[in-house]
This record gives sequence, structure tokens and C-alpha cells, in this order.
Amino acid sequence: MMDGVSEEAGTKRRGRRPGGGDTRAALIDAARGVFAESGYDGATVRGIAQRAGVDAAMVNHWFGSKEGLFAEAVLQLPFTPHELVGELLEGDVDTLGERLVRRFLGIWDSAGGGTFAAIVRSVASHEQATHVLRDFFIRYVFSEVLRSTGSDQQLFRATLAASQMIGLGMVRYVAKFEPLASADVDTVVTAIAPNLQRYLTGDIS
Amino acid sequence: MMDGVSEEAGTKRRGRRPGGGDTRAALIDAARGVFAESGYDGATVRGIAQRAGVDAAMVNHWFGSKEGLFAEAVLQLPFTPHELVGELLEGDVDTLGERLVRRFLGIWDSAGGGTFAAIVRSVASHEQATHVLRDFFIRYVFSEVLRSTGSDQQLFRATLAASQMIGLGMVRYVAKFEPLASADVDTVVTAIAPNLQRYLTGDIS
Repeated sequence: MMDGVSEEAGTKRRGRRPGGGDTRAALIDAARGVFAESGYDGATVRGIAQRAGVDAAMVNHWFGSKEGLFAEAVLQLPFTPHELVGELLEGDVDTLGERLVRRFLGIWDSAGGGTFAAIVRSVASHEQATHVLRDFFIRYVFSEVLRSTGSDQQLFRATLAASQMIGLGMVRYVAKFEPLASADVDTVVTAIAPNLQRYLTGDIS
Repeated sequence: MMDGVSEEAGTKRRGRRPGGGDTRAALIDAARGVFAESGYDGATVRGIAQRAGVDAAMVNHWFGSKEGLFAEAVLQLPFTPHELVGELLEGDVDTLGERLVRRFLGIWDSAGGGTFAAIVRSVASHEQATHVLRDFFIRYVFSEVLRSTGSDQQLFRATLAASQMIGLGMVRYVAKFEPLASADVDTVVTAIAPNLQRYLTGDIS
């Protein structure tokens, strides 16, 4: 996948940095700025590479794609949304809510919740950051997951599911309300998964 | 109710401002600072009045109590938590979730969501603001409401309910994910109330 990359763009660029760790770090820095300014869809691989002063092919070399760069630079996830969705869809649709809550906790708990708090701070202070979140969570995660359910009103359901997961993140990692903030994973999954499942496949109207 | 106010404190104060609109505005300003620094429980009527340079009795004169001052200064609510809880408890416990979602939307929708966004920004950037939110929502609203249900694990339920309501606020007023952001009140109540009701009175373990 070489979206947004062309030979012509490559040859026009000047003052490229050499490959390696510096390039990778420069791309992550540049990506954070460009995604925050332009949203996920508005950001291009070419624009990010240009800001980093490296060849656009380096994005694909280091991150596989724009999606991979976003996952690592902004969400600090060790996988792409595509991989996450693929993993969530393995299993019965009736237990999708459970897998989502468990996976979400697995990701953010292991990061100490700092990443989630950073994203919320960014959303609360920059209008543009909300576009990134919307593109990513609604379009690339929840909508993709919902496609497998055959449910009606999939976009509404996606935003309902997002309300629960974002609220869980706020209470567990940002506001830290006890006992939900330190409850063990199984306790949280048992309490929240049925509610998420209703948003995904239940009667909501 | 004259909590935190004594004659002695009153006579010691100096440089009081005259009563009236100035006093009211000064108290609101002072209250925002003191609540943010000390949390709800740590803030005293005396401390707020002192910072405003007015007599502590003015808090009760203008706002009824510390609770009323907090509701108006920080949450910009036209009622106290005590009044809110009293209102929510009027009716069947099986429809408590519905009343909570409807009342919450009534408050924040009419304020244009700006107040909710301001509270989130404050929570995301100041550790102390989370104490205020926790004191207020968990202790003075959700825990009070739950007391009427006879449910088990009331504090855990209170934090679960908070996760849904804070997430709803985030999606509707801060991140503005459509279609949830502009859905009419009845549509949102129908979709979310059963989930909130499960947190309040359903089987969660």
C-alpha cells in the first residue's frame, strides 16, 4: 500500500534524513502534528513525510501504512485498527461486547491509562482532535465491527457503543472514580459487556 | 444551614464588599478557585467568603449553602444536588434510569453543552477537578439516588452509571459524534435508559 506516495513526490523532496531510528522518530513527531491539524482523512502520507523531511516510502517501510502510523504515533497502539477489528470479529456475534470490553481494557490498562488521558486532553482542547477520534473509533473500529452484526442503525449504534467505552475510559483512567478505577478486568467485563452488547445487537428503539 | 460559618469568623473578617450583585459575582469567582484547589469537601464557606472579601453569611444569603454555591458556580445548575435527587426519586424505581437520562439531557442540552465541555477540560487538565466531580456526581447524586433502590454494590453501581453518563456527555457535547450528538431527546432516552437502569438495579455480577 503506497497511498499518497508517488515517484515524482519522492524525487522532488530535499534534505532527507537518513533511514533508521531518526527517520522513525521524525515520522512519529510529524504524524502527531499533521493528524492533529488535518484529522485522519485529511492527513496524507506525503504531507507527513514532507514535514519529517524524509521520503514518503519510509512511512510504508516503518509503519506499513498511514493507518499503522496513526495507530502507533497517536494512539500508541502496537497494532492497526484493521488488525484489531479482525481479531474482534473472531468469535460469536453474541459475545462481541465482551471481547470489545476485554480488549479495550487490555490495551489501556497495560499502558497505565496515560495514553487514554492524553487523547482526552487533546480532544478537550483542540477541535481537530475530535475529528481524528471520530474517524478512528467510529469509522474504522465500531462501524467495521458493527458491519458483521447485521444490526439496524449501525452508525447510531456505533456512537452509543463509543459513549460507553469513552465513559469507561474517563472514569477508569482520567477521573479515577473508585471502585471502577481499580476493579479487576473480569469484574468490569461482567458489569459492562451486556450493556455494550445491547448497543451492538439489542433493541434500541 | 450555616455550615462553616460562625459569628466569630464573621467579626474577624476585614475589607468586606457591600452586599448585592458585586458580592454574588465575587463569591462565584472565589468559589470556582477554591473548589478547583481544594475539592468539594475541602472547600469551606468561610474560605470562599474570605477569598471573596465578604462575610460568610452572604453565601447562605445568596446560595442557600455550600452545595448551592457549588451547583451555581461550578456546574452552572439552577438547582442544588439535593433538589435534583429529590426530583429524580419522585416516581417508580424501575424508571429511574429513564428519569436520569432525560433530566441530564434537559440540563446540558439547554446549556448548549458548553458547561459539560468546560468541566471535562477542567478535569482533563487539573487533578483536583476530578475530586470535585467525584464528590459531586458519585457521592451527592448517584449514591443518593442508589440508596433508594436497595441494590447491592451501590458504590460500584454509582461509578458504572457515571461511566455511561459521562460518556454520553463526551460524545454528545465534546467529541460530537453524529448521529448521537444531534439525536432528539426521546431517541437518546430510549436507547440509553435501559442500560443505565441495569447499572442501577439490574444484575451486574
